Amino acid sequence: MGKLIDDASASPEVQAVFEDIRQTRKTDFINNLWRAIANHPPTLRRIWQNVKEVMGAPSALDPLTKELIYVAISINNNCEYCQASHTAAARARGVTETQLQELYAIVALANETNRLAIAYKVEVDARFRDA
Amino acid sequence: MGKLIDDASASPEVQAVFEDIRQTRKTDFINNLWRAIANHPPTLRRIWQNVKEVMGAPSALDPLTKELIYVAISINNNCEYCQASHTAAARARGVTETQLQELYAIVALANETNRLAIAYKVEVDARFRDA
Amino acid sequence: MGKLIDDASASPEVQAVFEDIRQTRKTDFINNLWRAIANHPPTLRRIWQNVKEVMGAPSALDPLTKELIYVAISINNNCEYCQASHTAAARARGVTETQLQELYAIVALANETNRLAIAYKVEVDARFRDA
Amino acid sequence: MGKLIDDASASPEVQAVFEDIRQTRKTDFINNLWRAIANHPPTLRRIWQNVKEVMGAPSALDPLTKELIYVAISINNNCEYCQASHTAAARARGVTETQLQELYAIVALANETNRLAIAYKVEVDARFRDA
Amino acid sequence: MGKLIDDASASPEVQAVFEDIRQTRKTDFINNLWRAIANHPPTLRRIWQNVKEVMGAPSALDPLTKELIYVAISINNNCEYCQASHTAAARARGVTETQLQELYAIVALANETNRLAIAYKVEVDARFRDA
Amino acid sequence: MGKLIDDASASPEVQAVFEDIRQTRKTDFINNLWRAIANHPPTLRRIWQNVKEVMGAPSALDPLTKELIYVAISINNNCEYCQASHTAAARARGVTETQLQELYAIVALANETNRLAIAYKVEVDARFRDA
Repeated sequence: MGKLIDDASASPEVQAVFEDIRQTRKTDFINNLWRAIANHPPTLRRIWQNVKEVMGAPSALDPLTKELIYVAISINNNCEYCQASHTAAARARGVTETQLQELYAIVALANETNRLAIAYKVEVDARFRDA
Repeated sequence: MGKLIDDASASPEVQAVFEDIRQTRKTDFINNLWRAIANHPPTLRRIWQNVKEVMGAPSALDPLTKELIYVAISINNNCEYCQASHTAAARARGVTETQLQELYAIVALANETNRLAIAYKVEVDARFRDA
Repeated sequence: MGKLIDDASASPEVQAVFEDIRQTRKTDFINNLWRAIANHPPTLRRIWQNVKEVMGAPSALDPLTKELIYVAISINNNCEYCQASHTAAARARGVTETQLQELYAIVALANETNRLAIAYKVEVDARFRDA
Repeated sequence: MGKLIDDASASPEVQAVFEDIRQTRKTDFINNLWRAIANHPPTLRRIWQNVKEVMGAPSALDPLTKELIYVAISINNNCEYCQASHTAAARARGVTETQLQELYAIVALANETNRLAIAYKVEVDARFRDA
Repeated sequence: MGKLIDDASASPEVQAVFEDIRQTRKTDFINNLWRAIANHPPTLRRIWQNVKEVMGAPSALDPLTKELIYVAISINNNCEYCQASHTAAARARGVTETQLQELYAIVALANETNRLAIAYKVEVDARFRDA
Repeated sequence: MGKLIDDASASPEVQAVFEDIRQTRKTDFINNLWRAIANHPPTLRRIWQNVKEVMGAPSALDPLTKELIYVAISINNNCEYCQASHTAAARARGVTETQLQELYAIVALANETNRLAIAYKVEVDARFRDA
């Protein structure tokens, strides 16, 4: 496993990001992804800024839908860590176990029909192109 | 492009599925994916049954959220056809262009952080495992 | 599209590989993959040697099964060129359209159940580990 | 790891699928994939029906070839569970260790040439398009 | 193809980013990726900021090596657009055709050995873990 | 984990490859990938020959850049083994931890922009096509 930066060994730059994570999320908990990429402070600062903006700012999609999309992609990319962390975020926003399992079924079915569309080299319908 | 089965050349088995698609979707339009996999009638029947059940039946996730997950996976798998057809379905259910573009941003960001979690071999936090 | 090396502009090193392809396959036809990678003669020589050994030498798997595996992977990787060229090779070895379409169905279904196994984080059964 | 549904806690709907798996496969053993997706009974029923139809029904491809294609895709998708379970199925149908290792070599080589075809943007030969 | 935002129809927020791209790159040319994601101005601003910081700022890796890594990933993800744009960037930084073709060979070979390592479930050597 | 072939049980054909690995790399150490694929001697011989030629022979790309590309692809393919072994190779050639972490950032960012280019179906600019 990669080295994790704990609070005691964090540089001021890293501490500032950790502090912003804590204030933004209203929790003392810093999950391992941040402690891992804290090994490279510019990446920590940059990625946190991105996540905060994309996932945390007011948006046209509601916060739970956004987390569900994140979970779906993480499963598709075989990223156990991100599936776990964003599933936790989705649960914090009220997703039910049944909804998660419906999501798994959709992710799986999309993989099936995606491969059929590719295998058969299906041409996009004109009305889908116009849309 | 793959060969498409038009109504005139459809076998009774294929015609029956086409008819069920039309009745279920309340439209005469059969999109190319079905006309392509109609080259193999058992696959047409089976996949339509799956899509109808997973995407069309009453469920804990609302219909638009389900289409958004489908679009997200189709982008991630580089399947232009399925992105197009499920984007059309999402539009029919009221998604806005802004919401679609937020979805693109989430799909892209998830790909970025997924790769960081993999590159750093980040261990799943205990509290995420318990969840 | 990438530049293709025709016979007239081929260096002696490239001509020698083209000649071996022709003799091995008993045809004058050199398909575009070889003419493309002929831009880098060491890669042409090396990859042809690999394909000749893996796909052409006597083996425990029969030649058609080998081509079907190649087609399946090419679909899964969204590589239209390789799907096309190895489908042609499979047809030359007698595959039927029905068999190809069954292959598409298996590729698609495997993608579906693969994602379910990943989403549910299913532990490998002891008896499968022992095998 | 995901929660597994044992026989004692299975609902009647789940028990009915487990029973069909046992009768179809002529064994008492239910492998973990089914016990995992049994957390969502409609998915259990639906996916079992699909696997039974695609992999178990009489077909133009012989049963071992079908399992080999499944193994190949599972390796390509980095799905350890499905590689393990379908390798076991392939062994039950008589595949030899040498044949499996030849399969690994083909999967790997296809990944290599797929990437070259993509990198060089190789145009599909006319005769492959016509096929 | 997606809609592209030309200069005339760009909002002040988009114009400001376009201006920064032009000044940073010392060219009037704005390539299509930016004109496409300009449909969603917050994404345009955010992604440009990321690319500018990761690819443009002084770093421990030299600029050409960074572009080569970008090209390699773009090929691996089957993203024709990004392969094209970052190949152009690599050429502007002096890469030769031979170097690009060696890169293709490495990308392809890595895909081959990656799949073998996965197929054989090779355990990471102790000395590689310690590193 | 897959079975590893130790020196004592290696056939003469395998021993000859192990000996060439040792001489070429000037070390007694044979890492697990080779001991795993030694279960299939023709693959061992063939893959070693490929790795030796692509990664070891004099080339237009310098040896460290080549290892970095290999590491990038291995992360992208979620191949922990190959990431570990080629990271070790890159370290032996002098890469710094900062450089590795910049590489992670580029791999991750490329995944992000690749998905945006795909989602927006961005057309390749004429000047990138001409290049």
